Amino acid sequence: MVVKIGILGLGTVGTGTVQILQDLVGRHHLLQAIEIQRVGVRSIDKPRAVELHPDLVTTDLHSIVTDPEIEIIVEVLGGIEPARSLILTAIEHGKHIVTANKAVIARFGDEIFTAANQAGVYVMLEAAVGGGIPVIQPLKQSLGVNRIQRVTGIINGTTNYILTRMTVEGGEFADILADAQKLGYAEADPTADVDGLDAGDKIAILASLAFGGRIKRDNVNCEGISKIGAADIAYADKLNFVIKLLAIAERVEDGAVSVRVHPTFVPKDYPLATVNGVYNAILIEGEPLGQVMLFGPGAGAGATASAVVSDLVALVGVIQSKPSREDVVNSPNTALHPLLSCSHDRYSPMAPLSSLRSSFYVRFSCMDVPGVIGELGTCFGSHHVSIESIVQTGFQGDRAEIVVVTHDVSESDFSSALAEIKQLDAIASIPSIIRVL
Amino acid sequence: MVVKIGILGLGTVGTGTVQILQDLVGRHHLLQAIEIQRVGVRSIDKPRAVELHPDLVTTDLHSIVTDPEIEIIVEVLGGIEPARSLILTAIEHGKHIVTANKAVIARFGDEIFTAANQAGVYVMLEAAVGGGIPVIQPLKQSLGVNRIQRVTGIINGTTNYILTRMTVEGGEFADILADAQKLGYAEADPTADVDGLDAGDKIAILASLAFGGRIKRDNVNCEGISKIGAADIAYADKLNFVIKLLAIAERVEDGAVSVRVHPTFVPKDYPLATVNGVYNAILIEGEPLGQVMLFGPGAGAGATASAVVSDLVALVGVIQSKPSREDVVNSPNTALHPLLSCSHDRYSPMAPLSSLRSSFYVRFSCMDVPGVIGELGTCFGSHHVSIESIVQTGFQGDRAEIVVVTHDVSESDFSSALAEIKQLDAIASIPSIIRVL
Repeated sequence: MVVKIGILGLGTVGTGTVQILQDLVGRHHLLQAIEIQRVGVRSIDKPRAVELHPDLVTTDLHSIVTDPEIEIIVEVLGGIEPARSLILTAIEHGKHIVTANKAVIARFGDEIFTAANQAGVYVMLEAAVGGGIPVIQPLKQSLGVNRIQRVTGIINGTTNYILTRMTVEGGEFADILADAQKLGYAEADPTADVDGLDAGDKIAILASLAFGGRIKRDNVNCEGISKIGAADIAYADKLNFVIKLLAIAERVEDGAVSVRVHPTFVPKDYPLATVNGVYNAILIEGEPLGQVMLFGPGAGAGATASAVVSDLVALVGVIQSKPSREDVVNSPNTALHPLLSCSHDRYSPMAPLSSLRSSFYVRFSCMDVPGVIGELGTCFGSHHVSIESIVQTGFQGDRAEIVVVTHDVSESDFSSALAEIKQLDAIASIPSIIRVL
Repeated sequence: MVVKIGILGLGTVGTGTVQILQDLVGRHHLLQAIEIQRVGVRSIDKPRAVELHPDLVTTDLHSIVTDPEIEIIVEVLGGIEPARSLILTAIEHGKHIVTANKAVIARFGDEIFTAANQAGVYVMLEAAVGGGIPVIQPLKQSLGVNRIQRVTGIINGTTNYILTRMTVEGGEFADILADAQKLGYAEADPTADVDGLDAGDKIAILASLAFGGRIKRDNVNCEGISKIGAADIAYADKLNFVIKLLAIAERVEDGAVSVRVHPTFVPKDYPLATVNGVYNAILIEGEPLGQVMLFGPGAGAGATASAVVSDLVALVGVIQSKPSREDVVNSPNTALHPLLSCSHDRYSPMAPLSSLRSSFYVRFSCMDVPGVIGELGTCFGSHHVSIESIVQTGFQGDRAEIVVVTHDVSESDFSSALAEIKQLDAIASIPSIIRVL
């Protein structure tokens, strides 16, 4: 039984997907059922790394998502529009969706999954998070039998590459970003990556799967890495930490969920601490399982295409194991497979950052006057911020640098203490505030 | 729709399974469909960590596998018999199987899967390898779209615990094994673990999934860790390696597969090098994916029960998405879901160890006479064994110790060289021969 698919987009991931489908020896036998019916591109004449019969390629994307012969649409355009509209039209026309588009799913997942459930089709998104790492299906299926407590990910390759180089070379953020752009590891407009927005989209998706409720993307706090200095990396190292951009989703009190992205001091012996370069890793903690970590290439044509095609295999499996229409009398629409469909339609209540407790690292730039450490200590103390260490670490020009590490404290107490400290005459500036795991 | 299950065995894993099923809040919603119909035990009166209605518990295991109301049998007895016979009887009676029994699957998988395919039932074994790490389903489904080149695992917790302690403490194998037995990390009869047989069962299973062909267990070479000395651990460290018991399945020339377990020098920056203690990890290398590593607790009640219950969820998903019998006219037996059933029935051709190439570490104990290094070099050279380093590392008593590391050489050339070297007057013994990754 042949399953015809349409592919929207023939960039890196689209090309990788076609390459897998054109070279099946030694791969999953179900792939033999897949036939590429149409491929939608922006420009017909662009040179391509894959050969496709000219009849297959079109610039009319709408004709693909409405083609009655196509059962599955692979959306690898990226961006919000026209991806969102094409996905919705495809769903209306009864097609299953495979997408690598974390931005569209994190922002319009509600609309898309509601439409898919009504139309009786699946929306698959293994490629949207963690490149080739199998994480979406395990969270939906096997790991989901656990009571998931926390999902912690290094899920943006660009920022992990920059932080790794800052750690190894001791350079400053701006210089290494510029070099990463030259080498193709960071985009010309790096905002979505370095400000943590891409990681925010991805952790919103993981949180919805881990905790079984939709996540309002606006309630995901995202803090990027652009303020991290070489000095912070060096202090972290001395204190036996590395700095990583972590995306965290955790269950807090009263069933609420906290979902956030921020640079974090990670102890060097923590499972995620050794994940370097463009690699991604996701640590899942649940009861009774304990800790499981999934590690691999978070981006790249091959890895992401591997995830796209794995979703195709899952869909072909479901399509082939359904009885053909003629065999079924009373239930023409067999129920959706509960492990592939989206099973939740409520929103998870979300805990604001201010309700959390955390340990903090703060670097102060101060006038070199006596008594500053005492003043800092007093200010923190009067706001119930208990301190693990205050160290004057040296000088930057004529400013003394003082590094404070707190115990676990409430974020709101910590904020009030900082507000007061900013008023102190001796404090010139606060270059860095970083959470400690 | 309720799915009734029978559980064979109420040891650690059985108890953990019942605990998950009796406490469903915050877990996968499909678990609510599962009802424990019968639990088979050896002795009714033994005190248990779970409460079960007395009517559910029986010592008559045969009555469970033939119970017409039961759809799924969970086999967590361990051992070969009566597990094998009960599984086969259950299959004959049309029941799906969930098992944690790597020994029975590695040895009798052929018989069991053939029977299951004939009966139209599934045999699920996520719990048989890697405890709570999701590895079986990803290999069957998502990772399977890649052309898998190699699967490398640390998949025996006991040996990894012993090697980790030998590395950290510098102790000898026998002392640490004795202590591990006292602490419950090693069994009273540790043979299956320390001789690599348990890892051999597991890698045979992974190889069959990765390469799509059955694996003759007898063709899996297993070498254990009992000959590893503190001296080897120390030399490895100096050379920037750690010693790990690796289980390896790889595709070699002509489509043949090599499956083996042996202690291995692993470079300290290799992904598996930092997997310590009782943790397990499986590194999967494929095209175009690259390297993916799955890491987690390889044993223990909670982790293994998590895997057992994840298989239950997968089966419930398939059972619930099937149309009910009354709706289907022409095909009373809907086809098996191709992603859960066993799709291969041929055996993979297997490459003998002698056909491989590898780099070796060898520790020689020698008379302290001049010219030994020259003699060793000449012997290796005349058998085409190219050497990376020969170092006289010191003395053990009145014997000089010489450590040789070869380049990648053919195993048969290496064996002939060693055979000749053993005849040399200056060579007292060869305490260690360990492959280098």
